[in-house]
Amino acid sequence: MSILVVGSIALDTVETPYGSVSDSPGGSALYFSAAASFFAPVNVVGVVGKDFNFNEIDFLKQKQVDLSGLEIQNGETFRWGGRYYENLNERDTLFTYLNVFETFEPKIPEKYSGSRFVFLANINPELQLNVLESIPSPELTVLDTMNFWISGSRQALDEVIRRVDVMILNDEEVRELTGIHQINQAARELLKQGPKVLVIKKGENGAVLMSEKDFFFAPSYPVEKVVDPTGAGDSFAGGFLGYLAGCPQLNDSEFRRAVIYGSTVASFNVESFSFERLKSIGRKEIDERVEKFREMTQF
Amino acid sequence: MSILVVGSIALDTVETPYGSVSDSPGGSALYFSAAASFFAPVNVVGVVGKDFNFNEIDFLKQKQVDLSGLEIQNGETFRWGGRYYENLNERDTLFTYLNVFETFEPKIPEKYSGSRFVFLANINPELQLNVLESIPSPELTVLDTMNFWISGSRQALDEVIRRVDVMILNDEEVRELTGIHQINQAARELLKQGPKVLVIKKGENGAVLMSEKDFFFAPSYPVEKVVDPTGAGDSFAGGFLGYLAGCPQLNDSEFRRAVIYGSTVASFNVESFSFERLKSIGRKEIDERVEKFREMTQF
Repeated sequence: MSILVVGSIALDTVETPYGSVSDSPGGSALYFSAAASFFAPVNVVGVVGKDFNFNEIDFLKQKQVDLSGLEIQNGETFRWGGRYYENLNERDTLFTYLNVFETFEPKIPEKYSGSRFVFLANINPELQLNVLESIPSPELTVLDTMNFWISGSRQALDEVIRRVDVMILNDEEVRELTGIHQINQAARELLKQGPKVLVIKKGENGAVLMSEKDFFFAPSYPVEKVVDPTGAGDSFAGGFLGYLAGCPQLNDSEFRRAVIYGSTVASFNVESFSFERLKSIGRKEIDERVEKFREMTQF
Repeated sequence: MSILVVGSIALDTVETPYGSVSDSPGGSALYFSAAASFFAPVNVVGVVGKDFNFNEIDFLKQKQVDLSGLEIQNGETFRWGGRYYENLNERDTLFTYLNVFETFEPKIPEKYSGSRFVFLANINPELQLNVLESIPSPELTVLDTMNFWISGSRQALDEVIRRVDVMILNDEEVRELTGIHQINQAARELLKQGPKVLVIKKGENGAVLMSEKDFFFAPSYPVEKVVDPTGAGDSFAGGFLGYLAGCPQLNDSEFRRAVIYGSTVASFNVESFSFERLKSIGRKEIDERVEKFREMTQF
């Protein structure tokens, strides 16, 4: 079943210890789409400027991604520049030019309003609320956010949190949202506020899935050489929700496997800049790595 | 089969967000022993001062720990004081009085020289070498160390590393020992220098077991309330080596299970100050928690 994603489309200029790229396609909506499209059709809503070169993301069309919901506005595409440290866990943002993204107001095309799966990538929670209003009866809604909105738009964010099914976030965000330091206590508190499921990302240390009844801990795949971590979180979300959208029925076991699929797609994504690695693989390579995951965690 | 541990015995003064204790028994050798003794007999070599109150560790004797190898010297016992931050991942050391530990020179009693399993807790690598000399044919030797020795006693430490079977360490120590940032590359480099197995501890994020052929990722047990992390690493080592010492035969599967047992014992240890929690449980509680681990990681 098809997935709707609403988020940013960016041209990224990235420097890591292993190289650099400049004005390379990226942004949460595209990383999510590239990842999810291994499993299910994806409808993208976002905005780009006149300077955006669609040829560079042509591979997405061949992978069941519908880009016709992308607005093309006068002006330049959102640009982000960052430099990663040697350890690749930290980075400096060198510049952020919102450009056309600054006044972005997602309009959900009528043909997308039947989307059963929705990913609200990290944008202003007011806009995320508007998106939820446009989709009358989704099967599963998944929310991403960031500390900027937690501290700056709390009321709207709380309303979104009340209405979504799944939140994907990191330890610090769980703590900040609840004011509780012990992470498991904090997570249980957050589960009372709306979401039925939390996915707590721990970067190279894996991810935890928590619901009222389930607790699942998945490692990160031990990538030989992380080249560029940009998009890791969104490709995780794409693999996660993509996998679920492809399931005939959702249950605890499928949610666990969705975390593994999310981690797996993210592990491929970080092996190159932009979408190079994701372009080069198919479902077969993903399934093989999932099997390695299984071997890696059994005792 | 019996285990020999050589390390510190301390009186700890600890403050965490959940309380405090003062002059409470601790130190690497005791935390290791308390943990390992659920699985196998333990022989302890260390030093205490005249002020040490053996009644406080009487429970160890009832748990197959032989304390007759403890030297009692004129002077005071090693004292450490620390205060943990709200997040419990960081701490300030408030004081370190080495006292009788400053001139500690481990003497291995003749009756311990047949020990088949050896844990070299974090002490001067010169002393660790002496211990290895005293044990002619151990089945398995396990090394712990710290950044202080990595930067300050590199030559002796390298010699110990060449001679041990297993090293237990954290990410930063692997990187510092090899000068390689990508952790998996760094670990493989370290495996060339002597140890056949590395256990890389990641605190609340679990632990990784690596050997030439095996890669295993284990989560940390999601402890409801961490009261005091002191001794987590040594109780992990104790559960790990204790479990192995109790195995009829060592193989990859047993090493994987040993990591789970190590994490499990450590998860109990951090639920209280000093040895309170470890005193209150038995092998049954440990096995039950290992089963929960299994449920938590299957997909």
